[in-house]
Amino acid sequence: MQIEHPYLLFLGDVPDALAAKTATGIVDWRKDWCAGQLRLEGCAADTGLPDITTAEAKAKGVKTMVVGAVNAGGRLPDHWVASIVEALDAGLDVASGLHVRLGSIPAIQEAAQRNGRQLFDVRQNTETFKTGKGTKRKGMRILAVGTDCSVGKKYTALAMDKAMSERGYKSSFCATGQTGVFISGRGVALDAVIADFIAGAAEWISPDTDADHWQIVEGQGSLFHPSFAGVTLGLLHGSQPDGFIVCHEPTRKTMRGVDTPLPTIQQVIDLTIQCGQLTNPGIRCIGIAVNTAALSEDEAKSYLEKVSAEHAGLPATDPVRFGMEAIVDKVASEFGAP
Amino acid sequence: MQIEHPYLLFLGDVPDALAAKTATGIVDWRKDWCAGQLRLEGCAADTGLPDITTAEAKAKGVKTMVVGAVNAGGRLPDHWVASIVEALDAGLDVASGLHVRLGSIPAIQEAAQRNGRQLFDVRQNTETFKTGKGTKRKGMRILAVGTDCSVGKKYTALAMDKAMSERGYKSSFCATGQTGVFISGRGVALDAVIADFIAGAAEWISPDTDADHWQIVEGQGSLFHPSFAGVTLGLLHGSQPDGFIVCHEPTRKTMRGVDTPLPTIQQVIDLTIQCGQLTNPGIRCIGIAVNTAALSEDEAKSYLEKVSAEHAGLPATDPVRFGMEAIVDKVASEFGAP
Repeated sequence: MQIEHPYLLFLGDVPDALAAKTATGIVDWRKDWCAGQLRLEGCAADTGLPDITTAEAKAKGVKTMVVGAVNAGGRLPDHWVASIVEALDAGLDVASGLHVRLGSIPAIQEAAQRNGRQLFDVRQNTETFKTGKGTKRKGMRILAVGTDCSVGKKYTALAMDKAMSERGYKSSFCATGQTGVFISGRGVALDAVIADFIAGAAEWISPDTDADHWQIVEGQGSLFHPSFAGVTLGLLHGSQPDGFIVCHEPTRKTMRGVDTPLPTIQQVIDLTIQCGQLTNPGIRCIGIAVNTAALSEDEAKSYLEKVSAEHAGLPATDPVRFGMEAIVDKVASEFGAP
Repeated sequence: MQIEHPYLLFLGDVPDALAAKTATGIVDWRKDWCAGQLRLEGCAADTGLPDITTAEAKAKGVKTMVVGAVNAGGRLPDHWVASIVEALDAGLDVASGLHVRLGSIPAIQEAAQRNGRQLFDVRQNTETFKTGKGTKRKGMRILAVGTDCSVGKKYTALAMDKAMSERGYKSSFCATGQTGVFISGRGVALDAVIADFIAGAAEWISPDTDADHWQIVEGQGSLFHPSFAGVTLGLLHGSQPDGFIVCHEPTRKTMRGVDTPLPTIQQVIDLTIQCGQLTNPGIRCIGIAVNTAALSEDEAKSYLEKVSAEHAGLPATDPVRFGMEAIVDKVASEFGAP
């Protein structure tokens, strides 16, 4: 699927900012793709974009309205349906990251057909994947992995892609989650793929490319998460990374949503190498990305120094606070300058 | 899903015995559930059951016709559709392991509705699963794992279930693949589950049970198979086995369908323990099941002795040739008599 921008971001009437995190994620990374936001009365989220109507969006050249908010329970309330129909009638495509399929709602399906517009459900894969082959592909790949879910793997991959490009590397971001798909306009929500095709979908996401092109692949889950490790392993095998970055949140005690204790960074490094060697014998860790938001700047610096020292001098950084330069340096020293 | 027996096995007009391996698998393990077979002109497969019509099947008390054969390309040919409609009109439910959903074919859907019969698509999960929790459940569990796909994991689990029962253990077989689902009447084709729910589905397959009840869980794929390892890891985490049996085929050089070399039995033992400890710290290997069909009886015996000696004296057997007694003995010595 290829979702065309510019986007109009639909926020509905969500009760808090967190419910619109898909929209804010898109604005964080692709503000120049976003022409405005559409909010309903009572909406408590705000991306900072101008509030515009669907007709104004169309006049500004918008191609797609992105449903960038999640209602409680993942449902699509009736008054959101009306806004989506209005967008289709205005001549926009509509893309959604909701669990419910847009086309399963008759009013939306009819409006799309009536206007000849496309509906994109990034959590509902229509792509037919092959099973993974494990064959080495051309090009270079970096995967973000984690000690847990929701520890900044998407942010790290996007920041790495940006830093690599700025340093002169040929680089692209490969999305594996819904927000990532909106940010890149392409990709697959890997957790929504049929289990037999996880690795095959990961191969599709990071295809053969130029020998000097770097694909920076968004990670999913954790090899140590009892709910999602299967997705993580399929992604590791399919994306066959040359290098990986371990993402970590130092204040967390148990894995997200379960009672399982967090693994150590070293455990993640060891198991990622052990499993990743199946499809890329040269796999190695190239850095550690830590979310230090809970620490003061001085605490963060000394924590990162300690983490680096404990892991054979691997660069350790907070992508938000201190950027990705140290890890790009590591790429240059391990694999060569651009 | 709970598929009711007795079964009528539909073989269609498949050109060879392999295309009907689901049907022959059912007959191997649940002959007493099978009232007969229905074959079309030109069918080259034969389960050895009496050839009967759908009307005769109904008269004999058959509840479900199982489409136990696969046409080339996984399609459902028109002349098979006619037989399925006939079965529904005769008052039977119909269950299928084909990729195509029975209800997606209008003639079949109409016949099911007209007769108030159920359609079961074991490769199309309608069950809504939760994500895995990793919480320890009551009861004891054994999982079959493998150095590759198609190395006898289903056979091993079924043979283990039978041998455990005969020894006086409370035991049940937990199906994770389509043939296994027909053999047990319940279960999930795990490879057809949405990726996010692999571990959750495995937890559903092997639920809380009596403390002295053994669930023998059919394995899927291999942790070392670049296409399917994600399914295998989710199944390992979700089924939280106390013991596992490594299944192996000694003549194979590369993994099935890909160019990846086969791992060693020891590699499989080590990685299974390393990953399995996440949800069951007590996990251990209880035996090795080898398909020695390519060896003479003497060669097989000396090969199994060698394998046992190389793996700390773990029992090594060929379930077909030499039964599962040695591995049940190991269960008794590790976990106690029934």
